[in-house]
This record gives sequence, C-alpha cells and structure tokens, in this order.
Amino acid sequence: MGQLRRDPIVGRWVIVETDLPFLPENFEKEEHHWSGASCPFCYGNEDKTPPEIEAIRDPKTKPNTPGWEVRVVSNKFPALQIEGDIERRGVGIYDMSNGIGAHEVIIQSPYHHKEIPDLLDNEVVNIISMYCRRAVDLKKDKRFRYILVFKNYGPSAGASLEHPHTQLIALPMVPKNPAEEIEGAQEYFEFRERCIFCDILRQEIQEKIRIIVENEYFIAFCPFASRFTFEVRIIPKVHNSFYWAMSQAELVDLARILKDILLRLRLVLSDPAYNFIIHTSGLHNDESLAYYHWHIEIMPKLARVAGFESGTGFYIVWTPPELAARYLREVEIEEGGK
Amino acid sequence: MGQLRRDPIVGRWVIVETDLPFLPENFEKEEHHWSGASCPFCYGNEDKTPPEIEAIRDPKTKPNTPGWEVRVVSNKFPALQIEGDIERRGVGIYDMSNGIGAHEVIIQSPYHHKEIPDLLDNEVVNIISMYCRRAVDLKKDKRFRYILVFKNYGPSAGASLEHPHTQLIALPMVPKNPAEEIEGAQEYFEFRERCIFCDILRQEIQEKIRIIVENEYFIAFCPFASRFTFEVRIIPKVHNSFYWAMSQAELVDLARILKDILLRLRLVLSDPAYNFIIHTSGLHNDESLAYYHWHIEIMPKLARVAGFESGTGFYIVWTPPELAARYLREVEIEEGGK
Repeated sequence: MGQLRRDPIVGRWVIVETDLPFLPENFEKEEHHWSGASCPFCYGNEDKTPPEIEAIRDPKTKPNTPGWEVRVVSNKFPALQIEGDIERRGVGIYDMSNGIGAHEVIIQSPYHHKEIPDLLDNEVVNIISMYCRRAVDLKKDKRFRYILVFKNYGPSAGASLEHPHTQLIALPMVPKNPAEEIEGAQEYFEFRERCIFCDILRQEIQEKIRIIVENEYFIAFCPFASRFTFEVRIIPKVHNSFYWAMSQAELVDLARILKDILLRLRLVLSDPAYNFIIHTSGLHNDESLAYYHWHIEIMPKLARVAGFESGTGFYIVWTPPELAARYLREVEIEEGGK
Repeated sequence: MGQLRRDPIVGRWVIVETDLPFLPENFEKEEHHWSGASCPFCYGNEDKTPPEIEAIRDPKTKPNTPGWEVRVVSNKFPALQIEGDIERRGVGIYDMSNGIGAHEVIIQSPYHHKEIPDLLDNEVVNIISMYCRRAVDLKKDKRFRYILVFKNYGPSAGASLEHPHTQLIALPMVPKNPAEEIEGAQEYFEFRERCIFCDILRQEIQEKIRIIVENEYFIAFCPFASRFTFEVRIIPKVHNSFYWAMSQAELVDLARILKDILLRLRLVLSDPAYNFIIHTSGLHNDESLAYYHWHIEIMPKLARVAGFESGTGFYIVWTPPELAARYLREVEIEEGGK
C-alpha cells in the first residue's frame, strides 16, 4: 500500500509506494548512447562554439583559445535571442512576447570524460562560482527577471552533447514552477512569519531519516513529498533567497556536497541520467527575501519509472524518500576526485 | 528566434522555436523494445490478472473468461488501495494521508497488436464508454473526488505492458494540475462570465491555423502555448465540465476523432510514444460547472526533445503549434480501421 503525501510549499500531492518499494537493483540500467563526433567543447575547438562570454582561464591566454578551466558561450541554437526590447502583446485571448532572453552554456571543464564527481574540489568551486558570476552579470540587464541554471546529464534527461556542461537561461518573466514556489513560501510566511524552508530544515535535522549528508553550510536530503524517485534537495543552512552571494567557505562546502551527492547517485543507481536545477528568487530582488530560500533540486531519470508524470501531472515515487536516503547515506564511497 | 507564449488558463510561459523549427524528420525514431513474455491481457489469460471489475462481453460468457471486448481489472501493482477510510494527518510541517484510491487498467480490446487507430469505430466507442462507466461507478464512492484517465503508449511514455490498455486512478483529492486548471478557468469566468475553453474554441475556429480536424461534436487542435512538441488537444464543442454524460452521437464522434488524431501522429512522427489524459471536473460535481470544460490532452514524447521539462519546469516547443497542426492536417491518411 502506498501513501499520499502533500508538498507543504506548492500543495502538490504525490503517491509514495511504501509497500513494495523499488530497490536500486530494480531499475533498468540507463544506456547512454553517444555519437563519436568531435567535440566542440574540448580544448583546441574553441572556434567551433559561439564566442566566449566569460571564462576562468590562465591570464596569459587569450579568449577563444585553450588555457581555460571553465568557459561560458552562447548556446549555438538558442531558443531565445539576447538583442532587442521586450514586446508583449495579445493575440485575441492569448498573450505572447518576442523571444528575448539569454541562453548560455557553461562548459564545466576541459575534460571530456570528467563529470562533477571526478573533478577536484577547487575545480567544482570554479563551476559554481561561474554560476554566480553569470547571475551577477545578467542581473545588470533590467530586461531579465529570472535565471534558470540547470544541468541535463544523459540523453534521456535531455542532454544532446556529452562534454560536461550546464545551461543557463535568463528570462523576462519568472517561470511558473519557481513562481508557484515563491508564492507558496510567501503565503506560509504571511501566516507564520517564518521561512518554510528553514522550518523544513529544522524538521529534517531533527528527524534525520531523510538526510543523506551535511557539512557546515549545506544539507542534502530526500524531500518528504518527492516528485521523482531518488530525488535529492541540497539546501543552504544560512537563509538567503538567492545563490549568487555565497562566501568562499560556502562555495567550497557546496562544491563538496554536490560532488558527494552526484557520486552517491552514480554508485547507488548505476550512473543514472538526471537533471538538476537551482531554484532562486528573481534577479530583480537585490535584497534577500525573508520568505524564500534558494536550493538545488536533483532529479534522477530512472528507466522504467520515468514518463508517467508529464502525461498526468501526477507523480508516483517508487522508493520512499526515507529508503532512498538510507541507500544514498550508507553507500560506501571511494573518493571520486583526487 | 523564438517566441514566448503564455497559457491563458494557468499562466505558464513556454518558449516556442519559430526560427529553426524541428520538422518531423528531425526527430529520432523512438525504439520500442518489448519483452516477448506471454501477455496477461490476451484472451485465455484472464486468470493472470486480478479479478474483472467490469467488462463489455458476450452475455453468454462468464467474467474472467474469454468473450470480452473491453475488460477492466485492478492494477496488479496498485499504488493505492481501494479498502479503508481516508485518514489525513500531519507529520510536523508535512501533510499525508493513507493511500486510499482506485488504480484500474482498462484493457482496450483482445487484440494484442491493435491500438486505437487500428480498431473499428464501434470498438473505440466501447473503450470510451468504459471510461464513462467507470467514472459513473467510482463517483458513487464518496471518498473519491477526482478520476484520472490516462494512457501511456510506448516505454518512454511510461508503459510497461505492450497490450493496448488505458489506466485509471481515482483519488481522494484533486491533483495539482487539474486543480490549477479548474481554478484558472474559474478566475476567468468570474471576470468575464464566459467559459475560457469556449472562448478558445471560438478563436481557434475563427483563426483555423491550429486546427487539425473537426467533426460535428469535437475539434482537435495544437494549443497556442503547447508544452510539448506536437501536443494535441481534443475538445467537445458542447460545453460540459465532465466527460461521462456524453450522448451516443458524441461518443461516436469522439471515437472517430481520437482514432484519426492518433493515426495522424503515428504517420507524421513515425509511431511516437505518447501520453494522453482526460481533463475533467471533479467527481463531486453532479452538475456541469459553467466555468470548466472537459477535454483530452495528447502529449507525444519525441526522442531528442523530451527530458528538459521535468528538470526545469520550463518548456521548449521545437515545432510551432501552427506548423505541427499543418503537418497533422495535411498528412495523407489511409483508413487505419476497417
């Protein structure tokens, strides 16, 4: 028999299978098929991408040449264009806008075969600081109201290039999912004068059963009303509504916990496809909002259990979050980086 | 360059790629791998499923034997259980309920290799009348407030058995997606005193560019702010908030348009995986609501473009709905049934 659980922020009910839960060995191994084509994100192919927007690189080297550690370029096939004014208009009953926005690719490192768990801590710090630097830069553009930083790993999670990378979309409006989360958190705050995420954090730390790991500044746990089987949330212990103001110590702790969680998912679930996304308040908020709390959502795409949700808008979680957390907590990890 | 379009009912913005749209030949063909195991839904294997709940069958035959045309059984691995009272309770900040609900499988026909487009009109009428009969039956159970009727076709859409079937879940609450849609429609009605779906219908009939086909009682079109590439909506021309009160003439027209649309998707997109779901008002509404209008949403899962949305909650539609509608409208169809 299953349970029905309700997300306290957006009010979504999900079914959690508790009677006959799926164990990690019940998921079919995801096949990652890739073309052997030459890679535009590797060293020496810098001219195969649109021009560099920003990079962390050896100061003796020039843009669009080797020598970089993290490199940001425009998406070669952007869904939105960066130039122009926003023109919103009605079409009868409908609303539309021209497609103004930024669509960038953050090439995580020069190593074609090293994902986040395979990198050194300071290499992951570089990636995350680049997420912050891009937000700080795009924030200056008053047309943009929200920044989506997300990673698709594996073809079934939507990745079309193998070389490790993250994507970023800056938008002239707040998309529906974050908007709902922000509104839900605001309603809770108006009623209780407390941040709902801080309350969740307190309860998780007290109950311990859904926590995977924590360090000084961050905690990683499987959410009570997860939408996806083996979903993980990484949340900062220090309240802030946006992610781009982290201290160096926080950056290091986030790099460590992100590496750690992605390694654990790889070990427990045989290298699953996944998406992760940073949830943050809008770009137009210069001061941290008391009612919202940024975090990272990591959603594995497990073969045999994915596919249902987009058809129905309804979620079935095949492994209870408490059990998923135990697997992820107890797996023996060898140090993935060096 | 793309466009940003806003769904008028729930306020969701999506990106529509209009500059370099994907054409049907740009999608990789979905591979449908199936095990050759013997099928519990075929004639003669009636004892391999849980007992029959309801069937359309030769009156001379007995339940759980051959002789049926459409057969309904409980899901063998139900996520929810049918017996018991609903017990909602808090767990600290969280809310939960025991997993009360119905989880049924509607076996569409005895033919293992005939999907909806391959059946006779009256065979499809039988399937749809069974969707209605199950709703009318489950409605009597006052614990249930919503019924989700949905079909997963193809493994990547979440199907785990090949034999054509539809699923049904009855729930003690209205799930988030339909709840939002119902609320959005209600807000529109309060402001304008008109049904938003009727308004959409009028605009689509006037503009014609997104319509695929229509008959006396139904219209099929690609929604202006589609979330999925080649998404199709089938909507009744006669306003009703729930689907289980259709006349025989409406049933026949729905069977014809559903067959037709699924055949067109198969021809244009090389037999794609898809989900469809019936959106309806709640089971507790005995009278049709003036502000809501039931409909069917059909969502193809196209390889290379799926996967993005669940990571970000944000949708990119790679073929503008106007172009998708043209392909679906203009494809030459041979009669799939007989």
